[in-house]
Order: sequence, then C-alpha cells, then structure tokens
Amino acid sequence: MSNGPTTLTLHSMADVWDVYREELEGVEEQIRKNLDSSVALVNTVAAHILNSGGKRVRPLFVLLSAHLCGYAGQDHQALGSLVEFIHTATLLHDDVVDEADLRRGRRTASKVWGNQISILVGDYLYSRAICQIVDFRNQGINEALSEACRKMAEGEVLQLYYNGNPLMPESEYLRIIEHKTAGLIAASCKIGAIVGGATEELQEALFRFGQRLGIAFQLADDTLDYTANGEHLGKTLGQDLRQGKATLPLLHLLQHCSEPDRQLIKDRMETRTLTDEELRRIVGLMQEYGSIAYAMERAHAFVAAAKRDLDLFHDNTAKRALAIAADYMVTRDR
Amino acid sequence: MSNGPTTLTLHSMADVWDVYREELEGVEEQIRKNLDSSVALVNTVAAHILNSGGKRVRPLFVLLSAHLCGYAGQDHQALGSLVEFIHTATLLHDDVVDEADLRRGRRTASKVWGNQISILVGDYLYSRAICQIVDFRNQGINEALSEACRKMAEGEVLQLYYNGNPLMPESEYLRIIEHKTAGLIAASCKIGAIVGGATEELQEALFRFGQRLGIAFQLADDTLDYTANGEHLGKTLGQDLRQGKATLPLLHLLQHCSEPDRQLIKDRMETRTLTDEELRRIVGLMQEYGSIAYAMERAHAFVAAAKRDLDLFHDNTAKRALAIAADYMVTRDR
Repeated sequence: MSNGPTTLTLHSMADVWDVYREELEGVEEQIRKNLDSSVALVNTVAAHILNSGGKRVRPLFVLLSAHLCGYAGQDHQALGSLVEFIHTATLLHDDVVDEADLRRGRRTASKVWGNQISILVGDYLYSRAICQIVDFRNQGINEALSEACRKMAEGEVLQLYYNGNPLMPESEYLRIIEHKTAGLIAASCKIGAIVGGATEELQEALFRFGQRLGIAFQLADDTLDYTANGEHLGKTLGQDLRQGKATLPLLHLLQHCSEPDRQLIKDRMETRTLTDEELRRIVGLMQEYGSIAYAMERAHAFVAAAKRDLDLFHDNTAKRALAIAADYMVTRDR
Repeated sequence: MSNGPTTLTLHSMADVWDVYREELEGVEEQIRKNLDSSVALVNTVAAHILNSGGKRVRPLFVLLSAHLCGYAGQDHQALGSLVEFIHTATLLHDDVVDEADLRRGRRTASKVWGNQISILVGDYLYSRAICQIVDFRNQGINEALSEACRKMAEGEVLQLYYNGNPLMPESEYLRIIEHKTAGLIAASCKIGAIVGGATEELQEALFRFGQRLGIAFQLADDTLDYTANGEHLGKTLGQDLRQGKATLPLLHLLQHCSEPDRQLIKDRMETRTLTDEELRRIVGLMQEYGSIAYAMERAHAFVAAAKRDLDLFHDNTAKRALAIAADYMVTRDR
C-alpha cells in the first residue's frame, strides 16, 4: 500500500488488514529472513511460535505510526519484524514461567521441546533482534527498544512477586501491565515515529498512545480470561486465577463480594486449584458485582485517552487505521 | 592504578589483581550502582549471584585491553560491569537449564527463589545491560556485545541439541564452546580495544586473543569437572556426564576405550545416572588413555596462540598482565 495523498475510507479492522496487507507481507518476509540461525533447532522452535497465528499487532503499530509521520521508506517492515521477535522471545519465557500448555490453540514450545529449549530460543530471538536493531544505527530506536525490554522483565518479576496475593493494590496491577505489556506497544509506536522522522513531541505523543493502548489491551485480555468463549480463545479459561494471578476483575470482586466468597477466592489463589463450577460461580459474581463491566470501562477509557493522543496529527489513512486498531485492541477475542 | 609510562614487573596473577585492584573496585562500584530496579526482588536476586564470589574475569579483560590500547578514561569500568551483568544473566539461565543446585559453593538462585524468578531476573539483567550499553552511543560496542549474546544463545541451544549424544564430533564440541563461552570473552577484549581507540586491526587481534582464551578456559573448565578437588570447586564433580553433556575428555575417551567401557559411558549419558564409583572408574580410564592430558594440551595450545595475538602490541604493564591472565585461565581451580 502506498500512503499517498489520498485518504482512504476505513470502516473496520478488516479494512485495515486489507489496506496494509502488502506491507504486513513484507514483515512476514523479514521474519522468515531473520530465522537464519546456523543451529537448525533454533529456527524450528522459533518458527513454531512465530507461525502460530499471532496477529502481528506490534508490527502493525510500527507500520501505521511510520505512515502517520509520513514515512515512505522500507525500514519499518524490518523494524516491525524485530519487534515481533522480541515479543515472541517474551512469549517463550512466559510459557515456561506460567507452565502453560496451550498458546493460540497449539501446544506451547515448552510442552513440545521442553523448558530448556524455550528459555534458550527465547534468549536467541531476543539477542538476534538486538543485533539487527543496532545495525540501524539509530540511537532513538536503540533506546526505545532496550528500555521496553527492561520494563517487560521488571513487570514480569513484579507480577511473580504478587503471585497468590489477593491484597495487591490496583495501582500495582496497573504498574505491572504498563511494564509487561504496554512498554513494547508504546515502543513500537515510537519507533514508527522515529523512522518517520517525527519531532520529539510527536514521538512522545505516539509513545503515550501506544502505552495507553497497551494498558487497555491487557485489561481487556485479563477480562477475557473470565468471559471469553474458551475454544475461540485457544486456551483454558480462568487460567490467571488458577495460577494465583490477580487481575483487575478479580481485584474488584475481592473488594465487593461477601466474606465467604472472598475466602473462597483467596483459598483458590493460594492452592492454585479451581473447578469449572467454582469458575462459573466466580464469573457469575463478577457479573453481579459489575467487576467485568468495571474492568472493561477502564479499558475503554484508556482507549479513548489514547485516541486523543492522535489529535496532534493531521487526518490521513494511517490515523484512521490507528483509531480503528485502538478500538480493536479491546474488542477482539484475542 | 594509573597506567603511565612505567612498566611494572608482574610475576603472578596475584600481582595482576593487586595492580588493578583499584580499577576492579571501580567495576564493583558500577555493579552496585546498576542494581537499581524499582522492583526490590530483582535487586535481591541479582545481588545473590553477583556477590557470590565471581572473579570478574571478563571485566578484567575489558580493563586490561583498554589499557593495552592506551586508554586513560573511566568508561572501561562501567563497560566491565555491563559485561559482568550479561555474564550473570547467562548464569541465571544456565542454572535453570542445567537444574544446578550449587554455583560457587552457594545454592543457585533457581534453588532459592525458583526457576521462574531466575529466568526473569536473567532477562532483566540482560536488558538492563543493553539499555546502558546503548547509552555509550558507540556502534562498535553495540555490535560486539549483541553479537556475543546471539552467539551465546546459539551455543547453548547447540549444546542442548547434542545432549546425551556420545557421537558428537569434536568440531561441534569446539563450536559449542566457542559460541557459549569464548564469544563474550572475545567481546570483552574487543570492547576494551574500542574504548581505547585502537585501530580495527588491533581490535580484531584482541578479539582473537579473547576468543582463543575463552576456548582454552572452557576446555580447562570441562576437564576440571573430572579432576578437580570437589570441595574447592564449589560444585559436584562429574556433573557434565550426569547431565548427558559430552566434553572433550569424554569424547577422547569414547574414541579410545574398550567397547564395554564405551557402553557403560553411553548408558550413563543416556540415563543421566552416575555413581561415585563409576565416576572414579571413568576418571581412571581418562588418565590411562591420556584423555585428560589431551584436553589440557589443547587448552594450552589455545593459550599459546592467544599470546601470539598480543605480538602486535608494545610491551607494557597491561600486556604482561594479559599474558599472565591468559595462563591463569587454564590453571586456576575455577
């Protein structure tokens, strides 16, 4: 897609995927090209997770942000692929940390090849991405991505620290998701702005846009863990609670439910056991006390604020696509 | 220590530690300063392994290489601390991958805090180091370190790939240790050369020096696993074999011993079980067939070649220290 002077009319996310299909193909091409380790097993394991149907949301934000800032070159596709490599590295480590069986409906790499391979291929993907990022010789990009990686690791440790603790304050929950999820999405948007030659002010606006969107995305994702259609989601429902992970709907419920119900939840967080019937009961309570609605309202508020961050930019196809993508982040099934 | 025109007489590694004590203190200072995560648990876990008595060999090579190239500034201390951060990150992941109980005589972080924390704090230390490295805005340093990290991850995967396989060719063994161990030591030397303003030719000479030294170090370390005084080593002997890991002394023995002995070793590699008596028998065979001597001869040959890489440099204190440190890498207990 060439982002010329014509502003296209986009109505839905399907339109966005359609208009940017060719560019996203370019990202796929780069991803394949980068799977070039001389150690064949590295490529096999990395391909398993990279080809498991991820939506390439982060590369899309790199592309759209670059276009929003008037970029007409090709580097954004390679940069998008590198962001996806980093994201994939974190998924490989997350699956080990969470002892997950399924991701996007497929067995996780850790279940197929074992934890050791998942840890090491994660390390490889991450360091492979850093190698190529530094080849761009762009200080802003180096800083944005390394900072995002640092924040992700901190967010994950913080999450683990609070694991099994039903008394985690909501502010700490927000800090965790800002670190572990929003940081890389914010960096993706900022990198697009940098490569597009945007001023620092506009770079920061797109960074904030991505940060708010990332928080909204994780809020919605955490809520989906209680409400989604399990089969469609490609993983088991109620996983967060089973792993002792308190997310916003649960924190809200814990503040509003009866003492016996609170005890039940605390007990389940501690023992990391949960029957389907208990899960149904808890989801029912979340509906009753408005916990689901509360979490989704917060998500939508972050999306609305994110969209306002785009006010600094002129209207064009990329801006409309970013606004649609922003809504998509909290409405998609996953 | 100021590396002025006077060339000091150094006789032993003790002299080297002594002469560069102040500079190494500067490295420690930087290590402490960099343990500044807002997530307290990150600092606790990182400090556990960073303060467990590591010799700071890699930072020493950064310092000595910088001095060899006439460096008179202070950045080499910070760079040394960042190399140590990266090294520590790999140790945290290695301990999870190897399911190790002890490192340097202390319980591993994975045994104290669990695998999840070790994986994530490893990720943190690595990304924290990258953040600071890019702040130096030096392309050569960025490339040297990211490349070393990529190679380390590849080497670890390759090692895992060959795990339990007694038929691994010696060339693949050398490829593994060149990747997993020598890469970061080579990068340490090169970084010292870069910060010292050396020509590309001299940078490459120090890179090769470090690479050969790194290979020699790992060869000696792998041999120590069969011959060291267990208590002094701070870990259990015969661990490599117990983990199904073939190293050079074992590969040599497998090529020379009798068929029944070969079967015993293959069986032990496969089942990952080994009694103390069997270990004693295997070490005895290694002595008998010259396997220990063979591996150590290779190590010493790499050290000799490494020292010849220093021929391009003028004689000074740092050069003498590097030569002593080179010998130390294959003679120290660990």
